[in-house]
Amino acid sequence: MKVEGKNYRTVWLEGTSVRMIDQRLLPHRFEVIDLPTHVETAHAIADMAIRGAGAIGATGAYGMAQAALEAPRDVEGFGRHLELAAETLRGTRPTAQNLFYGIDRVLTAARAELPSIETARDAAVEAAQAVADQDAEYCRRIGEHGVGLIGEGWGISTHCNAGWLAFVDWGSALSPIYAAHRSGKRPFVFVDETRPRCQGARLTAWELGQEGVEHAVLVDNAAGHYMQRGQIQMVIVGSDRIAANGDVANKIGTFSSAVVAQHLGIPFFVAAPTTTIDPSCPSGREIPIEERSEDEVLCIDGEAAEGTLGEVRIASPGAKALNPAFDVTPGHLVSGLITESGIYPATASGIRDALTQAGRGI
Amino acid sequence: MKVEGKNYRTVWLEGTSVRMIDQRLLPHRFEVIDLPTHVETAHAIADMAIRGAGAIGATGAYGMAQAALEAPRDVEGFGRHLELAAETLRGTRPTAQNLFYGIDRVLTAARAELPSIETARDAAVEAAQAVADQDAEYCRRIGEHGVGLIGEGWGISTHCNAGWLAFVDWGSALSPIYAAHRSGKRPFVFVDETRPRCQGARLTAWELGQEGVEHAVLVDNAAGHYMQRGQIQMVIVGSDRIAANGDVANKIGTFSSAVVAQHLGIPFFVAAPTTTIDPSCPSGREIPIEERSEDEVLCIDGEAAEGTLGEVRIASPGAKALNPAFDVTPGHLVSGLITESGIYPATASGIRDALTQAGRGI
Repeated sequence: MKVEGKNYRTVWLEGTSVRMIDQRLLPHRFEVIDLPTHVETAHAIADMAIRGAGAIGATGAYGMAQAALEAPRDVEGFGRHLELAAETLRGTRPTAQNLFYGIDRVLTAARAELPSIETARDAAVEAAQAVADQDAEYCRRIGEHGVGLIGEGWGISTHCNAGWLAFVDWGSALSPIYAAHRSGKRPFVFVDETRPRCQGARLTAWELGQEGVEHAVLVDNAAGHYMQRGQIQMVIVGSDRIAANGDVANKIGTFSSAVVAQHLGIPFFVAAPTTTIDPSCPSGREIPIEERSEDEVLCIDGEAAEGTLGEVRIASPGAKALNPAFDVTPGHLVSGLITESGIYPATASGIRDALTQAGRGI
Repeated sequence: MKVEGKNYRTVWLEGTSVRMIDQRLLPHRFEVIDLPTHVETAHAIADMAIRGAGAIGATGAYGMAQAALEAPRDVEGFGRHLELAAETLRGTRPTAQNLFYGIDRVLTAARAELPSIETARDAAVEAAQAVADQDAEYCRRIGEHGVGLIGEGWGISTHCNAGWLAFVDWGSALSPIYAAHRSGKRPFVFVDETRPRCQGARLTAWELGQEGVEHAVLVDNAAGHYMQRGQIQMVIVGSDRIAANGDVANKIGTFSSAVVAQHLGIPFFVAAPTTTIDPSCPSGREIPIEERSEDEVLCIDGEAAEGTLGEVRIASPGAKALNPAFDVTPGHLVSGLITESGIYPATASGIRDALTQAGRGI
């Protein structure tokens, strides 16, 4: 997608460096950062310079490619370096299924070429690039499949950022909306600000603004009100991990949105590439929920004055906070899963079909 | 209730001065301001140094008592001064029903004693004190009626601030929680931060902290997650207006909370004095929803550095926002209305019973 007239992906490999759009500074500043080692790349993931399932997956893959390029040239040292790098990268975001997928795909590709270090290095870089390219292509297809669900002039609610910034390109939840916009359906997007980190107000609003899609930001509290008033015809969100039974882990607040949508008979779709499916996870109960720092709730940052970023403390001094990053939406609240190969019910058999189609049948 | 171990009401009369806790500075600074004339009291209401229906009602009454004490000692001059003061005070928050009630009650009491200026002055002070005392007493009784609903060690979710800062003392939604705390039931309060103005994170957390009630602040998105996980046994919220059929208007986000609670079988109670009931409003559909400034969503203020208040812009530059201040929760989602005279179903007949008990039967 374009930023200030120039085409960008969220993350890419340039020589031995991973480069990415620093999403901590958006929407107030647009900056590309350069990460010369896999350790710095891991830090960038943990520190949320990049976030979003697909983008993290590609970053993990690129981090592994970096590790292959950095590693000692003896077979044992090379193998150990890659394994340690995989461990470091996996430890950055415990709920991110795509991260594990990206890391493992590169690790497997490199190992398969051993004992030739040279071809293992090439295989690692190639596999990482394939992870990124596949992500962009899958998202484009999600848009193709999802656009048919959207009616002319519809109000669409979305939570968090599942746009192109969350992937390598296009996005998941926003991809059908971009497709609808380009086909002249004039969607209006109700953008949940998505506390605590406000990825909706910051990233989704920024993306939609760049593409010229009509939208408004609202506090997360207000989405239900507009659903109740009949101004929202559909909800589309992304996912961080989908269990084998169709349960969906996504940004905190998704569960409540799904409950309210079902209560009011509003379709609630989850858009995600099949790489988000974790067949080893039987249900949402087994998905670990990351607990993040209290300060994300108690304080907030933004633009304090023209071009100056600052932070203010909102909450009462001494107050403690709870800050779960994700919640689990049971599959029975989901109207369907929009994937790169089509739309599936959020059930065990729907998941099986989606995996079979993706060549990951079990 | 207690602040730094000392008992306070939100507003009181001291000699000829109205004194109040300046809520514009909370939770970052605790300051009591002194308002020597009814004109300064009116300014303090308009400027939101005090907010919350019950607290504003008592302040209006005290402002009228001040006017009686300031007025010329001739009957005509006294009467005119009081009428002009009533007009000034009414103009501060033109939609606050409790404000008009407090003002009119003092005006009527003073007039009834004319031509004796001396007894009219006494009657005005007495009536103002009665308005404040009644508010505190109603809230205390809400606590008495509500405490029986709360079990030992329960997790209780609340939204916005319906604590003692919104009234003269005790509060509505928080009153049963304070009663439970004092009776040793050890409640744990899940405090919704309550975007956009964060009255939960700011005022409710501050109040609970001062009283030593265990609590944590969470983003509004997270309440549903803790309900789903079985950590919340009950929701109690306040109300800005209750319609004749039991529909409840309250801070934006209340509706979604009620839907999620019902979905999970968690009791959802509304605590309010019967003065909040508007029998002239047939249902929630007729309650107008105030649309407030976009900036409340797009920007946020807080403590920027030790003792310094500042503001940051959260949202993407140029983004627009929608900012409804309230939503309507249909009575069928409400488990009961906790009032000063008991607990009533949120139905037309429940409302009739509550009004009859309050001597306002229709």
